[in-house]
Amino acid sequence: MGRVVVEVMPKPEILDPQGKAVVGALPRLGFTQFTGARQGKRFELEVEGDVTPEVLAAAREAAETLLSNPVIEDVVRVADASAEAAEVSA
Amino acid sequence: MGRVVVEVMPKPEILDPQGKAVVGALPRLGFTQFTGARQGKRFELEVEGDVTPEVLAAAREAAETLLSNPVIEDVVRVADASAEAAEVSA
Repeated sequence: MGRVVVEVMPKPEILDPQGKAVVGALPRLGFTQFTGARQGKRFELEVEGDVTPEVLAAAREAAETLLSNPVIEDVVRVADASAEAAEVSA
Repeated sequence: MGRVVVEVMPKPEILDPQGKAVVGALPRLGFTQFTGARQGKRFELEVEGDVTPEVLAAAREAAETLLSNPVIEDVVRVADASAEAAEVSA
């Protein structure tokens, strides 16, 4: 079973109240090294077989049409989740 | 300026109504290859300097305490965003 990761972030010029809340809370918890925060979405889409180039193309199209609002959001990543395994433990 | 990406997903056993809505909408839009969908969060945290191991450690701590609810969510990724550039265009 394959899995595709799709990630969407608010465009830089769009106000992001959730990110603002995070950046306000971080220093109160002692995390003073962070100067900004933005909050977006991560989707994991499952397919029966492998993540082929066709599946990635379909995921990219779904990302642009269903999973994001192109007026206020950018699709920042469409990738095979199995390529991510190494990063998780990093 | 460095940027750290933190990603959080609902635990597999936790009901995910947003993911359910996505998986219901996909076939209606012609995307019949996807059999499941989950929706989580992606955060981008900015730092003044480079993303050092100390910054990543702080981001990991912030991810576990502020950015996720460990009862219902898993932190699936904490990484330097600059390592991601290649994937975006993939």
